Amino acid sequence: MRILVLGGDGYLGWPTALHLTTTGHDVGVLDNYVRREYDTELGTDSLVPIGTLPERVNAWREISGESIAVFEADLMDGPRIEDVLAEFRPDTVVHFAEQRSAPYSMIDRAHAAYTQSNNVVGTLNVLFAIAAVDPSIHLVKLGTMGEYGTPDIDIEEGWLNVTHNGRSDRVLFPKKPGSFYHLSKVHDSHNIEFACRAWGLAAADLNQGIVYGAETPETARDERVATRFDYDGVFGTVLNRFVVQAVLGDPLTVYGGGSQTRGMIDIRDTVECIRLAAENPAAGGEFRVFNQTTQSFSLDQLARLVQKEAPVPVAVEHVDNPRVEQEDHYYNVVHTRLEQLGLQPHLLGGDDIRSLFAFVERHRDRVDHAVLDPRVTWRGALRSEGTIG
Amino acid sequence: MRILVLGGDGYLGWPTALHLTTTGHDVGVLDNYVRREYDTELGTDSLVPIGTLPERVNAWREISGESIAVFEADLMDGPRIEDVLAEFRPDTVVHFAEQRSAPYSMIDRAHAAYTQSNNVVGTLNVLFAIAAVDPSIHLVKLGTMGEYGTPDIDIEEGWLNVTHNGRSDRVLFPKKPGSFYHLSKVHDSHNIEFACRAWGLAAADLNQGIVYGAETPETARDERVATRFDYDGVFGTVLNRFVVQAVLGDPLTVYGGGSQTRGMIDIRDTVECIRLAAENPAAGGEFRVFNQTTQSFSLDQLARLVQKEAPVPVAVEHVDNPRVEQEDHYYNVVHTRLEQLGLQPHLLGGDDIRSLFAFVERHRDRVDHAVLDPRVTWRGALRSEGTIG
Repeated sequence: MRILVLGGDGYLGWPTALHLTTTGHDVGVLDNYVRREYDTELGTDSLVPIGTLPERVNAWREISGESIAVFEADLMDGPRIEDVLAEFRPDTVVHFAEQRSAPYSMIDRAHAAYTQSNNVVGTLNVLFAIAAVDPSIHLVKLGTMGEYGTPDIDIEEGWLNVTHNGRSDRVLFPKKPGSFYHLSKVHDSHNIEFACRAWGLAAADLNQGIVYGAETPETARDERVATRFDYDGVFGTVLNRFVVQAVLGDPLTVYGGGSQTRGMIDIRDTVECIRLAAENPAAGGEFRVFNQTTQSFSLDQLARLVQKEAPVPVAVEHVDNPRVEQEDHYYNVVHTRLEQLGLQPHLLGGDDIRSLFAFVERHRDRVDHAVLDPRVTWRGALRSEGTIG
Repeated sequence: MRILVLGGDGYLGWPTALHLTTTGHDVGVLDNYVRREYDTELGTDSLVPIGTLPERVNAWREISGESIAVFEADLMDGPRIEDVLAEFRPDTVVHFAEQRSAPYSMIDRAHAAYTQSNNVVGTLNVLFAIAAVDPSIHLVKLGTMGEYGTPDIDIEEGWLNVTHNGRSDRVLFPKKPGSFYHLSKVHDSHNIEFACRAWGLAAADLNQGIVYGAETPETARDERVATRFDYDGVFGTVLNRFVVQAVLGDPLTVYGGGSQTRGMIDIRDTVECIRLAAENPAAGGEFRVFNQTTQSFSLDQLARLVQKEAPVPVAVEHVDNPRVEQEDHYYNVVHTRLEQLGLQPHLLGGDDIRSLFAFVERHRDRVDHAVLDPRVTWRGALRSEGTIG
């Protein structure tokens, strides 16, 4: 099928695009390259050097013989998105193109407003473009497990059967997200569900766990097609960050008590989940939700796993939690639907962590110590905290 | 207490400001006057002529001796909102300042994106301004009963106790809104709940039913302090619109089958609910939700009530439903918390409808027939419907 990957220059969008080309699909990528601007703003950079998107696309064509169409465009430009869809005529749109860092969204008012307007309006523009060009285009949208928060009940896949005062209904699973970023994804989910209901669009919302890993079989083929690897306190995900700390021999810094538990997923499973969601489309009018996660770990468990495999002895240090979140909580996530479609999860083991160590070791001269620490606190907006004027 | 009314130039914001001055509060109003620009855009106007906000404030001072501070400001300007809060130092912020028409939000992509970014970012800016200036400022925010949609279970006041697989939690009541406008209020509710949880802010979210009525005791004192009255297909609410049709001797146009049932409220109860919510603030960290509605009616019931009282015989006509909504559905709304605080509802009766007839009759020379019909369809974005290019 023809698949357009929005956000195809990003950590996951790029390897997804490659994976889709190797599994028989005609792929286009769209990006506005703003993720690279966040690096400039924050003084960070990918651990592994990455070429420009056109350079990587050219390299991939050399390596694999597969072509990828490139569209430089911003989802905030609705007419342009409609034009791209009319030109590329995808069967499926895979939508990664959002500001995806919780700490970034919590920097201050401007970053919160940017994150929500960028993500929400960008997604609205995608919905309107699909409606205008071809309402049968299947939307595969990246959500996050963070939309659910940590409810005291089992987390179902998007919908919940509720009985109340003797009557029953199937409702959207109630959400309790933990940052303005996570909230933006909740808003998206509601908007998309409405577009399915009102316009008959077909959508899959993939509530993804925290992704770890540096390579997929495709990106590992040549350093010119590597995907970015973030380890900083704003964009780095927790396991990747721990691995960098371990390679440096630094203490692994756990935020708060460490019993916070989250759904996780290997980057190789992410790209496979996207393929499965694309190849098994929702029906017209259906808002289908998958919990795209394979295992749950507490922060302490992750730190101990990394510590156990560390090339040099490292400590585990608990630091003040910069976030506001429940630390001791119930967490049980249903995640069966992608496995029913054929996902064979890579479960996190010592091999994976050691292979991440080797990856980081190859680029350790590029590590900037200064960016590892958390620089954003959840309560910075409050007058008493005094960090926003 | 000191109360700042955001959107104080609007249909409900203005009479709320007046009511708060007569009940002992120091009141300021903030508006960007954009509601008047929507009139220009749509070729509509308030049925009753209204002066500028400063003119009305001056008239109210003459009539009542009460002063109201006026701030011309746009909620999209975050620093300005923070300055206004720092200057006026309210105990309570009452927030009406949103684009509040469902059809307006469904005109096209641009109007959907405008509605959501205006409402969501505007409210974010209010939350950040409160956090920065004084986190103890109580936020009284207007939501809508339309956030809930028409679930097959009783609609509780904002929160729902759920038992699932033998475990229980208190969760936000699941939402199923029916337009991009209603969705914007759902997004606001999630953002505000998070600000209460993460920052300890205190907020009351008032999920208001469809408001009817033209006057409050305060606005009725002098024509110079009248509030606007909308009867057009975009901003006019259903009962007000039926009343205008009846006065003209036109058929009352019911959208679709007519069994759609909605929570309603008298404008006199709205202003009283705001007073009660302001005078009984939520605790720090509490996200309190009220269902600000007093009665439920189907569209057919409303049409028959108006028909029965009509000064001349009028027909009830069912027209193609421009909206996408369930027509036959369960609807049972819990609305006890405002009554527990002291609300004594005005229940809709023949007197109210006849008094609305008299009000409209006084201004019937200003009615523009052309704007009564629905001009926006919910499926206009779809290629097959062909109304958006």
